[in-house]
Amino acid sequence: MAKLNRYWKLARRPVGNDFASALELVEHELETLVDGDVLIQNAYFSLDAGTRMWMSPREDSYSPPTPLHSPIIGMVLGRVVESRHPDFRSGDLVRAYGQWSDFSISRPDETYVERVSWQLDDLLQHLAVFGPNGWTAYLGVVEYGQTKPGDTFVVSAASGVTGALAGQVAAQLGCRVIGITGSTQKEAWLKEELGFDATIDHRQEDVAMRLRELCPEGINVYFDNVGGTILDAALENMALFGRVAVCGLLVHYDKETPVPGPYKFDQILMKRLQFTGFFSPDFYHRGPDVNRILKSWYEAGKLKMRFDVTQGLENTLEAYGKLFNGQKIGKSLVQVADL
Amino acid sequence: MAKLNRYWKLARRPVGNDFASALELVEHELETLVDGDVLIQNAYFSLDAGTRMWMSPREDSYSPPTPLHSPIIGMVLGRVVESRHPDFRSGDLVRAYGQWSDFSISRPDETYVERVSWQLDDLLQHLAVFGPNGWTAYLGVVEYGQTKPGDTFVVSAASGVTGALAGQVAAQLGCRVIGITGSTQKEAWLKEELGFDATIDHRQEDVAMRLRELCPEGINVYFDNVGGTILDAALENMALFGRVAVCGLLVHYDKETPVPGPYKFDQILMKRLQFTGFFSPDFYHRGPDVNRILKSWYEAGKLKMRFDVTQGLENTLEAYGKLFNGQKIGKSLVQVADL
Repeated sequence: MAKLNRYWKLARRPVGNDFASALELVEHELETLVDGDVLIQNAYFSLDAGTRMWMSPREDSYSPPTPLHSPIIGMVLGRVVESRHPDFRSGDLVRAYGQWSDFSISRPDETYVERVSWQLDDLLQHLAVFGPNGWTAYLGVVEYGQTKPGDTFVVSAASGVTGALAGQVAAQLGCRVIGITGSTQKEAWLKEELGFDATIDHRQEDVAMRLRELCPEGINVYFDNVGGTILDAALENMALFGRVAVCGLLVHYDKETPVPGPYKFDQILMKRLQFTGFFSPDFYHRGPDVNRILKSWYEAGKLKMRFDVTQGLENTLEAYGKLFNGQKIGKSLVQVADL
Repeated sequence: MAKLNRYWKLARRPVGNDFASALELVEHELETLVDGDVLIQNAYFSLDAGTRMWMSPREDSYSPPTPLHSPIIGMVLGRVVESRHPDFRSGDLVRAYGQWSDFSISRPDETYVERVSWQLDDLLQHLAVFGPNGWTAYLGVVEYGQTKPGDTFVVSAASGVTGALAGQVAAQLGCRVIGITGSTQKEAWLKEELGFDATIDHRQEDVAMRLRELCPEGINVYFDNVGGTILDAALENMALFGRVAVCGLLVHYDKETPVPGPYKFDQILMKRLQFTGFFSPDFYHRGPDVNRILKSWYEAGKLKMRFDVTQGLENTLEAYGKLFNGQKIGKSLVQVADL
């Protein structure tokens, strides 16, 4: 008998962050699998700010916009419940591109589906430290940012999953780590639990002035997740030959027309900076190698993460809104079934 | 008896490109040399767009602004006429930081002074192919731009000395080379004499549309000398993993307040681009090595340059204005004496 499935569908293009008017939860009977498919029962799916971009009609994003009336795509952690692919069996734990849904049908030969281990003290870390966010943090710091021991390292959206991991990776490399975040509670988490050297609350403080105080010799690496005025504040304070690892540009994602680049753009020339943009699907294939390094730090208690888990598919949109109004800390997940 | 010297002094900060109201030609008796000085009789000095920046009061340029009432600094080619430095003798041909003047007193232990060879078919090339412009072009293409054979290479201000050399270097590497310039005459020079594959006249054509036509698979390397709307047109047309070598930002130089960065800045993320800013004094020490490579291409007739030489120190400002109104081709020099 066909299984019932529910998924979030893009019914209209959202205006700003009004997701409730744009997305609809629909129910249907799952199709029968064909050769090459696996059926995954989602346990958790990841909420990512970048997904907001694909909801917009802009054509110059990473990839074409999500077509209207399509399901919203997201990274899921779940159990294979039926497989017509030779490399996967029922019971496998997988991390995969699926949907914001109860079940995902994925084709491993065409899209990202990876078997991951049941042997991990906290399986949710497959969607944090040991998943795309961890790889982005690690490669963003080490390769794109070319971070060196002794560097002064600044990260924005520091209490988000990637920002918090990036700061911890930089600390492991022997950097002084400063996080820019948006509340006293977030500052406390970063300093007291994650060991950041200093934090700045961009809602309460003048970021450029605080960076000037905290980084008298300039910022060597700025790991940016947001763009906009905070990027300008950082550019004003870069050291000669500094690097800007451009991981995200949150302030751009809900705009339908281009917003100007930083007003201090010319500092790229004056300070001889390097800006590098990167995007995790480009390096998913390197995940296993990166995870070997992350594992040693994780086991030593040096990479911590906090999860903001929302129960129930029907509560997805409220949880998603919290990515844009500053009301969450750490990794945002929706739980739709037990593992 | 003390020698008379004339030099251009920064009397006031210029407004826009009104240099006549800002600079004054003054005459004085040269000071007596002290130990470590060399006295250079300037034969030629170089006119560079970047000098405009130091005339402004902005503090966030490469280096602090030129103080009011100081001489304007520039790269000179001249003959040592008196030396109190053990490494230099009267009669040496030198390339040095001097002034827009008849004579320059320079201190080789503190500033750039380099002896160059009298054995060159065209000694002016010491201020073009074999000087800072040549090194900037070469390293901008090869190292900062990481240009590879087969790349589609686009350069702005292509008929300026650095742009024209950059395009020729890229052609030697096996790239398809497209130059953006500002007149039919400049286009003809680039295509017919320098071998550019295509050109765009930004005063007559829609640059973004023409780039789209000329680069259907995207731009791999954009060597930028100007910033502004032309940078936006390039960003709109970059290939995945493209590089932007930020050599100059001409549109910013005469502004006293920051101008916004490119509207298409977010393409750095969407296309995973790398932007790198660079500045020739950082690599003057590599000049001899780079010149060995440039020499082989020059001798094979693959690196050509055209000079726009103005006679007479008193005509400097008119010549300098031509750097900003599009009325010169190639390398701009002022000749103040014979070599």
